[in-house]
Amino acid sequence: MNNSDDIIYREKYGGEVGIVNYSDFFCDAPIGFKLGGGLDSFNVRYETYGRLNEEKSNAILVCHALTGDHHCAGIYDINDRKAGWWNNIVGPEKPLDTNKFFVICANCIGGCRGTTGPSSINPKTGERYNLSFPAVTMQDIVAVQERLITHLGIQKLALVIGGSMGGMQALQWAIDFPDRVGRVCALATTSHQNAQAIAFNEVGRSAIMQDPVWNEGNYKLERVPSVGLSIARMMAHITYLSDKGLEGKFGREHKSISGAEIFKPSFEIESYLHHQGQSFVNRFDANTYLYFTRALDLFDLRLRGGSLEAAFKNVSARVLVVGFTSDWLFPPEQNREIVKALLRIRKTASYAEIQSDLGHDSFLIHSPKLYSLVEHFLDD
Amino acid sequence: MNNSDDIIYREKYGGEVGIVNYSDFFCDAPIGFKLGGGLDSFNVRYETYGRLNEEKSNAILVCHALTGDHHCAGIYDINDRKAGWWNNIVGPEKPLDTNKFFVICANCIGGCRGTTGPSSINPKTGERYNLSFPAVTMQDIVAVQERLITHLGIQKLALVIGGSMGGMQALQWAIDFPDRVGRVCALATTSHQNAQAIAFNEVGRSAIMQDPVWNEGNYKLERVPSVGLSIARMMAHITYLSDKGLEGKFGREHKSISGAEIFKPSFEIESYLHHQGQSFVNRFDANTYLYFTRALDLFDLRLRGGSLEAAFKNVSARVLVVGFTSDWLFPPEQNREIVKALLRIRKTASYAEIQSDLGHDSFLIHSPKLYSLVEHFLDD
Repeated sequence: MNNSDDIIYREKYGGEVGIVNYSDFFCDAPIGFKLGGGLDSFNVRYETYGRLNEEKSNAILVCHALTGDHHCAGIYDINDRKAGWWNNIVGPEKPLDTNKFFVICANCIGGCRGTTGPSSINPKTGERYNLSFPAVTMQDIVAVQERLITHLGIQKLALVIGGSMGGMQALQWAIDFPDRVGRVCALATTSHQNAQAIAFNEVGRSAIMQDPVWNEGNYKLERVPSVGLSIARMMAHITYLSDKGLEGKFGREHKSISGAEIFKPSFEIESYLHHQGQSFVNRFDANTYLYFTRALDLFDLRLRGGSLEAAFKNVSARVLVVGFTSDWLFPPEQNREIVKALLRIRKTASYAEIQSDLGHDSFLIHSPKLYSLVEHFLDD
Repeated sequence: MNNSDDIIYREKYGGEVGIVNYSDFFCDAPIGFKLGGGLDSFNVRYETYGRLNEEKSNAILVCHALTGDHHCAGIYDINDRKAGWWNNIVGPEKPLDTNKFFVICANCIGGCRGTTGPSSINPKTGERYNLSFPAVTMQDIVAVQERLITHLGIQKLALVIGGSMGGMQALQWAIDFPDRVGRVCALATTSHQNAQAIAFNEVGRSAIMQDPVWNEGNYKLERVPSVGLSIARMMAHITYLSDKGLEGKFGREHKSISGAEIFKPSFEIESYLHHQGQSFVNRFDANTYLYFTRALDLFDLRLRGGSLEAAFKNVSARVLVVGFTSDWLFPPEQNREIVKALLRIRKTASYAEIQSDLGHDSFLIHSPKLYSLVEHFLDD
């Protein structure tokens, strides 16, 4: 970003949603899951920003990525030093403008931040679900979101938007509920998880499941499989960044390295990764990590009908897909492929590629180019 | 590879070194290590193929990568189903032609395949060194190789060659012993380990060192930290391949996935990685893995004199560096940079880039283009 961009940005996007609260939607109508099993009832924790208009036509659903949650904008109290994970994009006069739109963000089913998931109590047994929780797919996540949207009285969403796993949900919405979404914006995502991404997930799951504390998923919440979960996170974190980005940020900077303490983290990149691993353990549940990474692995839109074109047959939403040049987890080609398939069957879709050295996580980071794309897509 | 390449290859490179034996060089002259400490005596296990000529001018040193060893060609007995790790390149009428050259390959110091390393007995204590083994750098590895070469009566090597960590050793030879090497060939390597590569190594070390069985390095050889070591290997193995290669070989092929066994490895890539992890545990020592990955992290040729040009100042060897297009661990740019620096100070160096979808491990795999490059480099 250059300085003039920054000035324009500050002038244009000044507002904040401020102090927010989450809400809970308790749904006691049973739901069946795609791979079998289901839930008799469940809770969905969500937040909303802005006001729903009378026609209920201005609702935007924001879908979170693997380790995100429902808190995408604002702060919980005045001393809160960290705002929601997409605070740069959600707020008054920001790209998802809460003066105009009613923005909703919900913790996914299977999650660990208030929505029912493996660490929740199964009302039938009075014990935590743990691995008795049904297998979660992107379709189940979206089906639960649809319950929430219906509960809020919204027939048709103006936009469903998300990056990475959030982008998968956005595409799934366009396919599973074609009449209920006007626009879909999917960032840094893919139409199907490929072998390399499955491979990294499997290493992470193996680290968790081989941590003796994991105990077939029946660990105590006072003592979680922190070793396995932090290893999984450290490795995954590398895949969210880029070679060039890491080199620019950390390079080979290190403390003095002595022969006696040769294996102590000395390089800055090492300390950074350990910090990422540790802080993740404090905020995320290991079983949810297993369920969500598996939902990613199972994601393959082509399964519906045998091809992307067949899967997209009934899509009526306008679609914008954005890839980032240095994203090697879901590289530009995989993003572009989605739009190509849509265009081949004459749907309204466009693809934009943003130059960035920040890797997969680029979609989360300050980017006037992304803001302008989203804004024009909504105006279009 | 196309068919005509294959035919030329089979016609040209037909021979095998056949049944081989390793040798041991026990050196009882003490050696000091770069970061402090040292060894009063040590063993070097090595193999040779072909015959040293009277002038002792036809010796080639092959340097192995992180998890390689001294057994780079031939078989140990007639029932041996797997030949040495570079059998495709070493043998009669192969690129490193044992009819012409005397080829030497030694297990690196710090190793676990016969050369003294952390799992060896410290003669002073009668116990295994474990973490009391001195920190190993690429300079120490090369200094020990120089002892072996001197022991074999060789004043000047015709060629030092290796890929990945082996390429680092080859470059280190050119710098540390400029008068003792005529040619250097470094494949799929770098002049300095960058932040991303350090990051992956640190995750692997963390997995090992947080495995409770590791026990500060004092595990019993009957019960090794197999969980941590296999996690480290599985992750590292992904970095040796490529997105495209994995997609071509495994794609999303999987067994049927049931909700009840959702976390069981079902995708082919998962089973493959688990197999890689398991077989590695059976052949490699966890402490050696720590020492060698740290030697990689510490590798930065620029430290000598502050720049690559300064480091290369006294190089007299002709240098060939080969990069592989899909190698994302040590990408082409990093290989090219080495030659650029050499050319800037008017050394004799060339760079070749081989198109390959097989990632970092391309240097180990059948490649008539690589064979022809090596052969011409030796003839040149």
